[in-house]
Amino acid sequence: MYQDTSIAMLDELLASSVKAYHQYKTYSLKQRADFMRTIAKEIEALGEELIETAMAETNLPAARLMNERGRTIFQLNSYAEAAEKGNWLEASIDTALPERTPPKPDLRKMLMPLGTVVVFGASNFPFAYSTAGGDTACAFAAGCPVVVKAHPAHAKTSTLVAKAIHEAAKKCNMPDGIFHHVYGAGFETGEYLAKHPAVKAIGFTGSLSGGKALFDWANQRKSPIPVFAEMGSANPVFLLPEKLITETEALAKQYAGSITLGMGQFCTNPGLLIAIDGEGLDRFVQHLRKEIKSIVPSKMLHAGISKNYSEKLAKALAQKGVQLLTQTEYAIGEGEGLISIATTTARTFLSNPVLHQEVFGPYSLIVQCQNEAEMLEIAKSLEGQLTATLMASPKDIRKHQELLDYVQEICGRFILNNVPTGVEVSLPMHHGGPFPASTDSRFTSVGADGIKRFARPIAFQNWDDEFLPNELKNANPLGIWRTVNNELTRNPIS
Amino acid sequence: MYQDTSIAMLDELLASSVKAYHQYKTYSLKQRADFMRTIAKEIEALGEELIETAMAETNLPAARLMNERGRTIFQLNSYAEAAEKGNWLEASIDTALPERTPPKPDLRKMLMPLGTVVVFGASNFPFAYSTAGGDTACAFAAGCPVVVKAHPAHAKTSTLVAKAIHEAAKKCNMPDGIFHHVYGAGFETGEYLAKHPAVKAIGFTGSLSGGKALFDWANQRKSPIPVFAEMGSANPVFLLPEKLITETEALAKQYAGSITLGMGQFCTNPGLLIAIDGEGLDRFVQHLRKEIKSIVPSKMLHAGISKNYSEKLAKALAQKGVQLLTQTEYAIGEGEGLISIATTTARTFLSNPVLHQEVFGPYSLIVQCQNEAEMLEIAKSLEGQLTATLMASPKDIRKHQELLDYVQEICGRFILNNVPTGVEVSLPMHHGGPFPASTDSRFTSVGADGIKRFARPIAFQNWDDEFLPNELKNANPLGIWRTVNNELTRNPIS
Repeated sequence: MYQDTSIAMLDELLASSVKAYHQYKTYSLKQRADFMRTIAKEIEALGEELIETAMAETNLPAARLMNERGRTIFQLNSYAEAAEKGNWLEASIDTALPERTPPKPDLRKMLMPLGTVVVFGASNFPFAYSTAGGDTACAFAAGCPVVVKAHPAHAKTSTLVAKAIHEAAKKCNMPDGIFHHVYGAGFETGEYLAKHPAVKAIGFTGSLSGGKALFDWANQRKSPIPVFAEMGSANPVFLLPEKLITETEALAKQYAGSITLGMGQFCTNPGLLIAIDGEGLDRFVQHLRKEIKSIVPSKMLHAGISKNYSEKLAKALAQKGVQLLTQTEYAIGEGEGLISIATTTARTFLSNPVLHQEVFGPYSLIVQCQNEAEMLEIAKSLEGQLTATLMASPKDIRKHQELLDYVQEICGRFILNNVPTGVEVSLPMHHGGPFPASTDSRFTSVGADGIKRFARPIAFQNWDDEFLPNELKNANPLGIWRTVNNELTRNPIS
Repeated sequence: MYQDTSIAMLDELLASSVKAYHQYKTYSLKQRADFMRTIAKEIEALGEELIETAMAETNLPAARLMNERGRTIFQLNSYAEAAEKGNWLEASIDTALPERTPPKPDLRKMLMPLGTVVVFGASNFPFAYSTAGGDTACAFAAGCPVVVKAHPAHAKTSTLVAKAIHEAAKKCNMPDGIFHHVYGAGFETGEYLAKHPAVKAIGFTGSLSGGKALFDWANQRKSPIPVFAEMGSANPVFLLPEKLITETEALAKQYAGSITLGMGQFCTNPGLLIAIDGEGLDRFVQHLRKEIKSIVPSKMLHAGISKNYSEKLAKALAQKGVQLLTQTEYAIGEGEGLISIATTTARTFLSNPVLHQEVFGPYSLIVQCQNEAEMLEIAKSLEGQLTATLMASPKDIRKHQELLDYVQEICGRFILNNVPTGVEVSLPMHHGGPFPASTDSRFTSVGADGIKRFARPIAFQNWDDEFLPNELKNANPLGIWRTVNNELTRNPIS
């Protein structure tokens, strides 16, 4: 439907992006924030057309899309607020001590933008982690121009949102080139962008293979650049004995809901349930089976995802030692996901890496352990995860300290007695995790701290107040929090 | 003198390091800080023996080494203080809103240690950026065990310092394996460590080739790990016209001193002086020549560095269009560095990438520009630098805003009317910069923010207060700064 953007055009757009960068980085925090808020308004102004377009492209229901639009708008507004507040700048100042031997110079540090950021959106969040999603919001907040490669699975939706961003840029007198929207059906466009000297950072949400390819291209450049790729995970849930036996039915209901929420198409979908054999687990399995049977399947995001899910599901179920436990009772229409739960033993799981991989869709594997030692062994064997969850009573927690320790090691977010689906947009959110959940466990793609992915510190030594950025001037005209001579303060320097 | 640590031994040491990690990460900030302070005391207690050993190995004079020992002790003590203060943890908390639809969960985030850090020290700082140097201090502060590969050029000094660390570990009841000291004359040991699954991060100070090799090995692992490599730079100095003509002699004196400080063996040595042709530059050159002639050369760090300097100097001077301006008048003894200044035109500089490379030693190249446009072109052509310096009057600054903009882009620290040598140890220091100055421009190897290289966020969702780390408990028992519901505060949560 949309032609790939030509190489010549990409070069031209990137040149204009670099030009825009040199202007945009001089804009005040308030100007950046106003721009972001205007984008939010323009997205809202797209109204029904946006929802209808996304429904047609993604199979997502209207209610979910309206919800996601709300999340997108909230992200833009709340990151705008955080950008303006300036805590993320990590401003710090040591004033001079000319009488010291040797004299101590005046030194002031803050974050500055990296330059043009290329964003590759997610197919499963056509608004919130796509064109004007979290990565784009973070990049604009940091002071970076953005180039979005439209996701081929919702290119029309992406084009509409891009129009809203362009409209906002015009209204806010942003420099030409602050935002570009490009198309590429294959990987070539992405590769070209990742290797282009004008590009200074990459934000990506999607598959391990896609994220890892970008990471490798970016690191093999003459000047490597940071890539934050959020690549999903299996999100293990550890069901501890006392909790399992005392709340069996409630847990089964809760997890049947979480596993099938949005047809399992969330990167925090609980794909692994790990428990110890016994009466609690037996009853849990019975209840879960009952719950799952009665859940009505719906269409997956698009034909590619549906096909991919069928294949991965078939592969998972074909592994030696894996038993299908239950599936939805409903007939599966074209493009719908076959809701499925399988079981296996800890020994089988530990010996077969295929079972550790995410199956993107409404599927979960119950791993049955003979004892606590096996459960611990599983925790130690897992790769990096976005989330890990513990369903546990206080007594369970006290009894399983070593398990807790190892589970912490593998995850970015550690949940107690809750489900991993539902990723709150807030400062304390961490959406990332050790590889392969993300390419750098030190950064997040949800929450205002995500801004820091696209900024780097610069220290100014011995500069006159007049020539310093406002953020670092003695008077603290922006009233931001700064560390002055080792103390956090909003006071001016006298 | 020291045998390479065997592969079998490396495996054994790393296994013990991983064990130590699981204990050490549970130690309080105060325990970590006390350990660091005890290391500082143990280093002090080595007394004369340490200085004499380092003098014999590195050719560095006693005064310089005593100074550097002081810096090392200051680093350990000040990072200990920062570690204990806890601002680097970036603790943030959003309390629950159960009445919201959907209910908002309690979410609390802080940094946790990455795991075992391998440190490769610098040859030019046998104390401060070596065995118990900045990287080791940052890793211990973050909660990580450390494995140091002794620098072959000062393995004996390194062994002494390692003894001090082991002594401190014993006194502070640190877990076995908190610190290991290994030897490897070739690159094989480093490669083995960088690729070992037990290793979770790398700190390196040294050459571009060494740092880049580690970066590549680390990224090609099954699970890539972060590498912070500080790889030096040419540290360009832009001499602007008014400043140059009004303070010619003082500038020449100041820069003759900075270029030859420590025989030019600092990563912030000013290797490029960029100015516009004219009377100011002519007079500056005359004065600089006079100053340089009278500087007495001394021995370089070791034979390898001296040989490397001779070769790189010869190569630089042999480039077409490069003229030798002046050298020290003194006869050069074995292993001494031939203090040298050369000149070239902007056109020659722009067309020859060899001239952009750092020549590690007492050498600087004056680049003569015909006009401001050429000077700007040079700023745009330079790769990433640890520092860039502007020697400028207020009028010069106002007149050269575009130059300032582009110079900011390439450096980690931007200095006005001062010299780049002398790297203050303080929170606002940024010692890093865009590639190839470092492998990740978002981190620093000097100042307490360097701790963040070795830590990652973890978010706790829905945890009972009892089971949260002290840093995140309602009562805020450690009294640290935290962002609670978007406001920075040290108050408890009621």
